[in-house]
Amino acid sequence: MRSEFDFIKKIRKQSAIRWSQSAIIFGVGDDAAVFRKDSKTDFVITTDLLVENIDFRLEWTRPEYLGHKALAVSLSDIAAMGARPCFALLSIGVPKNIWKTKFLDSFYKGWFALAEKYNVQLIGGDVSKTPDKIVVDSIVIGETKRGKAVLRSTANAGDLIFVTGALGGAAAGLAEIRSPTVKEGVNDRATIKERLLIQRQLRPNAQVEIGALLGERNLATSMIDISDGLSSDLNHLCEESNVGAIIDADKIPVDSSIDSDGLNLALNGGEDFELLFTVNPKKNSKLKNLPVTQIGLITDKPKKIFIKQNSRLIKLNPKGFIHF
Amino acid sequence: MRSEFDFIKKIRKQSAIRWSQSAIIFGVGDDAAVFRKDSKTDFVITTDLLVENIDFRLEWTRPEYLGHKALAVSLSDIAAMGARPCFALLSIGVPKNIWKTKFLDSFYKGWFALAEKYNVQLIGGDVSKTPDKIVVDSIVIGETKRGKAVLRSTANAGDLIFVTGALGGAAAGLAEIRSPTVKEGVNDRATIKERLLIQRQLRPNAQVEIGALLGERNLATSMIDISDGLSSDLNHLCEESNVGAIIDADKIPVDSSIDSDGLNLALNGGEDFELLFTVNPKKNSKLKNLPVTQIGLITDKPKKIFIKQNSRLIKLNPKGFIHF
Repeated sequence: MRSEFDFIKKIRKQSAIRWSQSAIIFGVGDDAAVFRKDSKTDFVITTDLLVENIDFRLEWTRPEYLGHKALAVSLSDIAAMGARPCFALLSIGVPKNIWKTKFLDSFYKGWFALAEKYNVQLIGGDVSKTPDKIVVDSIVIGETKRGKAVLRSTANAGDLIFVTGALGGAAAGLAEIRSPTVKEGVNDRATIKERLLIQRQLRPNAQVEIGALLGERNLATSMIDISDGLSSDLNHLCEESNVGAIIDADKIPVDSSIDSDGLNLALNGGEDFELLFTVNPKKNSKLKNLPVTQIGLITDKPKKIFIKQNSRLIKLNPKGFIHF
Repeated sequence: MRSEFDFIKKIRKQSAIRWSQSAIIFGVGDDAAVFRKDSKTDFVITTDLLVENIDFRLEWTRPEYLGHKALAVSLSDIAAMGARPCFALLSIGVPKNIWKTKFLDSFYKGWFALAEKYNVQLIGGDVSKTPDKIVVDSIVIGETKRGKAVLRSTANAGDLIFVTGALGGAAAGLAEIRSPTVKEGVNDRATIKERLLIQRQLRPNAQVEIGALLGERNLATSMIDISDGLSSDLNHLCEESNVGAIIDADKIPVDSSIDSDGLNLALNGGEDFELLFTVNPKKNSKLKNLPVTQIGLITDKPKKIFIKQNSRLIKLNPKGFIHF
């Protein structure tokens, strides 16, 4: 069966026909599309669909968290373009039994609280009925300096590979939520570490400030957000840039709340919403005060993505989240 | 139970807090939001959620038609702002059994055929899995001259009320589709009139050219697209503009393929995607070569929306499509 990525490639070909004559700088296939605003500024725009019982379960989360996460996933895409978010639209479909409850009030409360933090303004949306499941489409528009949006496709051999923050926490949180012992008493008996991991899954932070800063200061040569998982997203970035990579297992920052299986979760767990980016080694010193970790190096060998572990090079296959 | 419109009003209040300090010209509550592009141009943006078994049924339509309609509904919103469409994004969620079929290829074929007609370019989107139903979120961005987007809220007492095209056809088409005799043989035994009505429902045209022209030539003082139904959408426009209206039953253009109940369908049937707009009487002569019909007059009496029939004035209540 064709993969989601094959399908997107096909759509991209169809939609690329007339790009050259237009004000679109980059379209289908990156974290967000880029189009011209004015002589100094470009807009970027992203859309993320969240579907009940695929992307979230009502019995595992709270409406406020869901509102927060719906915005956070799109803010992460904007950050991955090196852009600063400014406007948003929100389409939401709910069944009648949910419409009658306080669900939407709580959902929007969570959404607006995060929007306010980053000065993102809701300018539109749609509200619709669904037969039985909730669906949310989150749309965010951001700005970058003209021509400065950071793409996935512009990493160069010799660039250093960095990630923000720590990885694996969201996947570990999902495992906690799924574990029957925790689920029964998520608010009572969960330890502090368990709670932190669960928050990483249900109420993720997007790296809004650091993404914008990497773009504005021309520090990143390429960037992607880690939504599918480091192994998958590094493969995407390398494929788009037509380069290879070697990362070092010992350098990967694993979430400190994880007790076991940390490296696997950091490599293959999705939804951390950290940023994966590449930097020209000449600019390495400019990153020293930022909460980022160098984990490897871009090579000139397309399709060769390796992880170094105990002095051995092992092929790093994309094992993160695949939608179909 | 609160209505969808009450809910949107509430969201609008929350989102309005910081509008004044921003580059947003108009946000939540119109057919589309307006934000500044550059010194000469504004962007407008709209999003429309289409949900299986609420907005469409697979057994009643074809994937190509659905792709066409997903774009058409958003083009209609852009037209209702007096704007010209330029870019689009498309988020689509499908269950696994649909993913395996040619559904998406056909859906995009219908979408791209309409997009090409109006030179609209796909710049992004999202593809996701759903548990069992299809969901589509259609996003279109258009352009207007700076400050020239036509809102719902700017009709003036004394303005003439116009509609484009003819009304009621989409609702009559839906009735045809639902009728068991037609459903069994929609491709074989349906008459030409029945086929035309069914096409109005499944493959609607958006008034892209005339909407843009009304905006560019400053002809419309206010505008809305007829998606919920004339009675509902006239009520929306009057409420937003704080005015009243009298329309004339004899002047309402009823779709010529409708055999019975035409006036009722024209007033209360939804999804015609024609434009309802108001014009200063001094500009009346500039509309004479356009496929539009004057149906009434804006009055200075808020909440008083009447229809004149057989020399009697009858209150025109919104009876069109209400989502909840």
